[in-house]
Amino acid sequence: MRVRALWWEDDRLALIDQRLLPQRERILRLRTASEVARAIRTMQVRGAPAIGVAAAYGMALAARGGRSTPERAAQRLRSTRPTAYDLFVGVETVRAAWVAGNDPLAAAHEYRARVVEECRQIGLAGADLFRTRPNVLTHCNAGALATVEWGTALAPLRVAKERGADLFVYVDETRPLLQGARLTAWELRRERIPHAVIADNAAGHFLRTGAIDAVIVGADRIARNGDFANKIGTYEKAVVARENGIPFYVAAPWSTFDGSKADGSSIPVEERHGDEVLRMAGRRTAPVGSAARNPAFDVTPSRYVTAFVTPDGVLKPSGLARRLARTRRPEGTGHLGTTKAAKSSRRSR
Amino acid sequence: MRVRALWWEDDRLALIDQRLLPQRERILRLRTASEVARAIRTMQVRGAPAIGVAAAYGMALAARGGRSTPERAAQRLRSTRPTAYDLFVGVETVRAAWVAGNDPLAAAHEYRARVVEECRQIGLAGADLFRTRPNVLTHCNAGALATVEWGTALAPLRVAKERGADLFVYVDETRPLLQGARLTAWELRRERIPHAVIADNAAGHFLRTGAIDAVIVGADRIARNGDFANKIGTYEKAVVARENGIPFYVAAPWSTFDGSKADGSSIPVEERHGDEVLRMAGRRTAPVGSAARNPAFDVTPSRYVTAFVTPDGVLKPSGLARRLARTRRPEGTGHLGTTKAAKSSRRSR
Repeated sequence: MRVRALWWEDDRLALIDQRLLPQRERILRLRTASEVARAIRTMQVRGAPAIGVAAAYGMALAARGGRSTPERAAQRLRSTRPTAYDLFVGVETVRAAWVAGNDPLAAAHEYRARVVEECRQIGLAGADLFRTRPNVLTHCNAGALATVEWGTALAPLRVAKERGADLFVYVDETRPLLQGARLTAWELRRERIPHAVIADNAAGHFLRTGAIDAVIVGADRIARNGDFANKIGTYEKAVVARENGIPFYVAAPWSTFDGSKADGSSIPVEERHGDEVLRMAGRRTAPVGSAARNPAFDVTPSRYVTAFVTPDGVLKPSGLARRLARTRRPEGTGHLGTTKAAKSSRRSR
Repeated sequence: MRVRALWWEDDRLALIDQRLLPQRERILRLRTASEVARAIRTMQVRGAPAIGVAAAYGMALAARGGRSTPERAAQRLRSTRPTAYDLFVGVETVRAAWVAGNDPLAAAHEYRARVVEECRQIGLAGADLFRTRPNVLTHCNAGALATVEWGTALAPLRVAKERGADLFVYVDETRPLLQGARLTAWELRRERIPHAVIADNAAGHFLRTGAIDAVIVGADRIARNGDFANKIGTYEKAVVARENGIPFYVAAPWSTFDGSKADGSSIPVEERHGDEVLRMAGRRTAPVGSAARNPAFDVTPSRYVTAFVTPDGVLKPSGLARRLARTRRPEGTGHLGTTKAAKSSRRSR
C-alpha cells in the first residue's frame, strides 16, 4: 500500500507520528487546531508540503470547532514553524475560504488534492533524469511522509523504478533528527528500492569518488531567483556536487515557492533546541556544560541548482525565474497560484 | 591538569578508553601487544599520532613478553587499521630498534617524546593564525586524546588561548562515532575554551554566513603533494571553506606524512561496520533491512588546503612539497625523518 503521511477520517485529521518511525507506526487522530499546531511544532508531522496540508486541516478543524476566528486560528498555526513556506500557503488557502463563507473543510480537501497531484506530476516530470544516472544521493526525507503522498525528491525515483531504472539511493542519515535514516530508508524499504544509509559526512566522499551520479532534494521555501531553504546540510551537498560536476536537482510543488522573496537572504531559518544535537536516542553524548548551535535549515544559492523539478516540468533556474514572472499571485499571499497540475486536479474532483 | 591520551606506568601501557568519554573516564592498563592491537582496532585509542605511539608501546610490550618476533609483532599491530600512517611509523621505529639490538622500550619512549614535542611545536607555530580569526571550525578530534598531548588541530588553539585570543570553536559532532561531540568538546571544556557542538550538516551554514573565520583539522595520512586523508567529512568542509574564501589548515606531526605516496589516490580508506551508522547509543535507528556504507575517512586534494601547520612552521602546499623533497627518509619506511622539533626533543631527554 502506498505511503500516506496524513488523511481525513471520522471528522479528524489522522497522521503518522513521524517522531516514532521506523520503530513504531502510531497513528495520531487530531480534533482541534491546537492539536495540529502541536503536532507541527513537535515534528510529529514534518516536511514542507505535509506541514501545509496539516495546517490547512488545522484551519478546517478550527472552523468546525466554532470557538475561533479565521485570524486567530491562522495566527496560531502560522506561529508553529517559520521556514516552510507551504505552511503559510495551506493556512491562507483555508482562511480565505472561511472568510469568504465557503466550506473550510472542502478547501482543505482541495488543497490536499492539489499537493498530492502536484507531487505526482513532479514524479512524472523528473523520472527520466535518473535513467542514465541511477546512483542518487538524497538528503533528509522528501518522500510521501513529507508531502502527504508520492514525495517531492522521492516521487521521480518512485516513477523511475516503475519504469525499470536500476536505482541505488545513498541516504544521508540527516542529523540531528535522522529523517534520512528513519524515514527515507523506511519509504525506500517499502518501495523495494536498493539503498544505503550513510553518515552525512560521507556524502562528499561518494560524490568525489564517482559513486553518485545525481543529487535530488526537496525544499522548504524557494525564492523567486531560485535560492532555496532546505534541511540543514543541503547547502554542503550542493556545493560539493557542483565541485564534482554532478547534477543537483530540487523538487517542489508550487506551494513551496515564495513569490514575495526576491532571493534567499530574507528566508527565516529556524534554530531549534540544542538538545537535538547534544543528545542521541535520549542520552546525552556531549559533555555536560557544552552548548550547541542547531539551525534546522540552510539556504542554498540558486547557482548550485542544475534544475528544479516542478509539477510543470524540469526548469533551469533561469527558466524558473521566467516562469515565476508570468505567474499571478493570489491576493494576500506570495503563493504562486494555479498550475497545470492543480487545474487538472481540480477538474478531476 | 593537562589531558594525556596514554602513558607508560608500572610496565604497562595506560590509556583512556575513548569509547566511553565523556560519560566515563576509565583507564585501561595493557600488558601485551594483543591487548594494544585490540584497543586500536576497537578505537579505545584513536587519532593517528596516538595510534602510532600506542603501537610503538605495543611493539615494546611484545619484545618484553619474549614470545614474539619483531616481524610477527609488527604484522599484528600494522593490521589493526589501514589509514593512519603514524601507525606504521610507530611500529617501524620500535621494530628497527628491536632488530638492531637496542632497547625497544627506550625507542617507544623516544618516539612518544618526539610526537609530543612535535605537537607542542605545532601549537607554537600555528597559534597566531587565529589571532585575527578567532571563530574556528574543527572536525573530529585532533586534540590531546588523538595525539598523546597537546593535539594537532587543537594545539594552536590551546596556545592561542594562552596568548589571549578570544576564541570560539564550532565543533562538528562527527558522525558516526561523535569524536567531536564527545572528545573535542570534553577537551575544550577542560581548557575553558568557549565552543558549540554542531551537527556536521550545519558547518556549511556557518561557513556561508560568516560565523566561521578559519577551519583547522588534523590528518591521518598526508601524501607528498599535500593530498591528505582525515576523518570522513573533512573533504566536504574543505570544499565549502574554499568556496567561501575561508582558510583551511591541516595540522600534523611528521609521522603523518607518507613520503611513499605521490598523491592521495592510493591512500587506503578504511570502511567500518555499517552498524556504526545504523545504530545510535546502542539502539537501531534505521529500519531493519536497510544497509549502510561507512567509510571512516575521506581524501581531500591539496588544492583545498591553505597551509599545513607542521612542527617546523606553517607551510603552503607548494612549500610542503619543497620541504619534503629535501628530507631523507629512514630505511624501510616512508617516514620523513628527523625534524627540528624532534632534535630538540632528543636533546632534552
